[in-house]
Amino acid sequence: MWLSTIAVLVCASLSNALSCNLSSDLLKEIRSYQGTVDQIINATTQGLFKGKTYDELAYFVDKFGARQAGSQVLEDSIDYLLDLMQSTGYDLDNVHGENVTIPHWIRGTQTCEMLSPRKANIPVLTLGGSVSTLANGFEAEAIVVKDFDELDRVSDKVKGKIVVYNNEYITYGVSVAYRSKGPSKAAKYGAIATLIRSVTPFSLNTLHTGQTAYEDSIPKIAAASITREHANMFQRMQDRGDKIVLKLNIQTQNLDPVTSRNVVAEIKGSRDPEKVVLVSGHIDSWDVGVGAMDDGGGAFISWYALRVLKALGLKPKRTLRSVLWTAEEPGLIGVQAYGQAHKDELDKHIFVMESDEGVFTPLGIEYVAGDEGGCILEEILKLLTPIDATQAKLVEFAGSDITIWRNILPTANLLSRNENYFWYHHSEADTMDVLDTAALDKATALWASVAYILADLNKDFPRQVPKLNIVLPSVLHV
Amino acid sequence: MWLSTIAVLVCASLSNALSCNLSSDLLKEIRSYQGTVDQIINATTQGLFKGKTYDELAYFVDKFGARQAGSQVLEDSIDYLLDLMQSTGYDLDNVHGENVTIPHWIRGTQTCEMLSPRKANIPVLTLGGSVSTLANGFEAEAIVVKDFDELDRVSDKVKGKIVVYNNEYITYGVSVAYRSKGPSKAAKYGAIATLIRSVTPFSLNTLHTGQTAYEDSIPKIAAASITREHANMFQRMQDRGDKIVLKLNIQTQNLDPVTSRNVVAEIKGSRDPEKVVLVSGHIDSWDVGVGAMDDGGGAFISWYALRVLKALGLKPKRTLRSVLWTAEEPGLIGVQAYGQAHKDELDKHIFVMESDEGVFTPLGIEYVAGDEGGCILEEILKLLTPIDATQAKLVEFAGSDITIWRNILPTANLLSRNENYFWYHHSEADTMDVLDTAALDKATALWASVAYILADLNKDFPRQVPKLNIVLPSVLHV
Repeated sequence: MWLSTIAVLVCASLSNALSCNLSSDLLKEIRSYQGTVDQIINATTQGLFKGKTYDELAYFVDKFGARQAGSQVLEDSIDYLLDLMQSTGYDLDNVHGENVTIPHWIRGTQTCEMLSPRKANIPVLTLGGSVSTLANGFEAEAIVVKDFDELDRVSDKVKGKIVVYNNEYITYGVSVAYRSKGPSKAAKYGAIATLIRSVTPFSLNTLHTGQTAYEDSIPKIAAASITREHANMFQRMQDRGDKIVLKLNIQTQNLDPVTSRNVVAEIKGSRDPEKVVLVSGHIDSWDVGVGAMDDGGGAFISWYALRVLKALGLKPKRTLRSVLWTAEEPGLIGVQAYGQAHKDELDKHIFVMESDEGVFTPLGIEYVAGDEGGCILEEILKLLTPIDATQAKLVEFAGSDITIWRNILPTANLLSRNENYFWYHHSEADTMDVLDTAALDKATALWASVAYILADLNKDFPRQVPKLNIVLPSVLHV
Repeated sequence: MWLSTIAVLVCASLSNALSCNLSSDLLKEIRSYQGTVDQIINATTQGLFKGKTYDELAYFVDKFGARQAGSQVLEDSIDYLLDLMQSTGYDLDNVHGENVTIPHWIRGTQTCEMLSPRKANIPVLTLGGSVSTLANGFEAEAIVVKDFDELDRVSDKVKGKIVVYNNEYITYGVSVAYRSKGPSKAAKYGAIATLIRSVTPFSLNTLHTGQTAYEDSIPKIAAASITREHANMFQRMQDRGDKIVLKLNIQTQNLDPVTSRNVVAEIKGSRDPEKVVLVSGHIDSWDVGVGAMDDGGGAFISWYALRVLKALGLKPKRTLRSVLWTAEEPGLIGVQAYGQAHKDELDKHIFVMESDEGVFTPLGIEYVAGDEGGCILEEILKLLTPIDATQAKLVEFAGSDITIWRNILPTANLLSRNENYFWYHHSEADTMDVLDTAALDKATALWASVAYILADLNKDFPRQVPKLNIVLPSVLHV
């Protein structure tokens, strides 16, 4: 996940108290899917596919490891999936890659040595997109600020220094601003580099990376994360009046853009094949950890749902399309290319789903849709009672990549028990250990059930979406 | 803390149901200390010393960082404390260091590259005391076992391989056996190195070190920890039939032993100065993290308790002695030297306390003492009601260093809410962030109160200790 959890921040005030008045025919139609949903749930949680989503994902991440945008490993992993999806026994329709030109940024040297008040190695993890320091780094004094307000107050002391943001974690949506905007805000006052306290509510001396976003009109300065523990140490040192001197060396490279691919697979619709219900996750990851959680889980339930439906012989009226977006992490690149390539068909995209907040025990879905749509989703989710995943929750944004369509078509996000998502996010701790085989089975069942019913209902899902009361953040690239 | 939590393992069946019959005079005497205890609690939690234990410790660890046995930093930190304890305003009595010859083991290169089934860097952290691999490491196949039983079952496949212990964490006392005994058990079957899953109940890809213990009669092989996540990955690979090939390079040095010091400070007794109540923690740490928790907190409450008593003008009848043990981590070296140097006075050691399981919100004490002693401790702990730390819990072992005296005199350990101690233990995550200023204040109050009363009661604390129903583990060096 990139920045989408800003949704968590802004949706708190939304009310879910829908006054539903669906026709009895529609209610009857939705309820008629209970047998199909039970069949899907049985297949994934007890039958042939029990444990398979986890096993497929574990094999995949063990085989490829991290899949950073621009890397050959990402492309190899895409080739592997394209082969797998159309192999005997999987037999998905129309499996293909759709070319996307993506950036190719790589991290190089990343070292920080504290020279004063004592000598110590300070682990740093360069932020995605960061520029380099001087070729051999530089020595400079550090100044610690707790937030942007404090930065403004001490702006006359920033010039020539390394700004350390010791921003307390509040929510991801609030705190990620230091990672995205911190470098340019500090550079505006003459800072020569920035170190950002890792954006996480919990740390075992854990470094978290993620994309930074420079303002065009301001000099670009190197940016790396430090651990919460070291940020607090610097804070204590400064509070005591100690002078903090660091030698920081950050080297990065922006190589030539490369061609990557969004991975597409389908179950062709039986009645309206040109109409699409899309389920998605992203296939790229950061270069730390192995991207099992972000977003291996989301990507795998999104194609494995189709594999389960196919094996059960369930063919909906509309086309069910699974898309695994490439290059989400550097800024929703894959989805934007898809939007361009398919711009003439977007009006045939009936409903778009994404899972990119980790796949933990599923609770239901978060959605952006109008009242009637909300009522339909609530009815559909009731069918998931056997796995206790019945919530349908209206939010301002759903998903990460798919937020680019937030204002034009209905979207939804997997809602799961992901309280600790940001403990692992964009860190070396994003591994298979975060995931649970039973949770993945249930999520595949939920994903398959909801997508299938939406693709199979007699009438198209209502297209209207609620007006957004806030300005879309520019960092969302929409 | 080194290995003492074996106590946690073996003490579960102990009953605390004492039938107490203390004399009314003794009860009255103990209860007469309520005012003193209140005074101590007020001073540390609201008055002059509020927040001071934390601040002193934070300054200390920020100034020195890790204090590994054998390092110059440890000696510098000892010099600093000796100076501080006798400086104006602190004024502790008889402040001095007592020389101890300690080992000087240091870690060097520690790299592990997976060559098959794919190339990847595997982070490793050498175990304390480990020998080196060949000068440039070696390539070898790995074999994963879940426990010693499985090792025995596959013993004919171990020769020439690297044994990976993927031991599930049960309790520290149980699971640490893989760290201490695993290398020799694998070497017995011809293994050429061992990688041990870090001994922890929770991981963010976190490495944990700690001392290993070779058997004399078996060839010594290099030993390092890997993360729980990588141990599980190796397990999955082996279960799939993948051949795992690693290039492991571990370099360590056993340098000449050095002279370190146990740090001693006192409040001289007014009536029986030759009699001693001892409070302690250890001053050395591992070389990862900064030893704020293990055992900075225990060491600092153990001398700061005396500083508070001194400032309050509280001078007990017997001598109160604070000892900060050196070189606990490589095997309780400092305390054993003290035992030798003071062997003729041990019969004057009335009661010995240690905190080495982290200083979290205190609940009371764990003790090894006879029934009458237990009853006295229960009465004393009732006085700690204002900070809700009234538990007196009989255990088989108390403390870490001081377990060497478990059979000859009464001992006690700080009991605190330390559920997550082993998340941080012996890792880079052992920093000030683990500690809480209010918890340290309460622990100092508890420590000072109990030690003061035991040193001041008219009659000596009863000397008998319960017979131990199990054989003392040889790894405890007793």
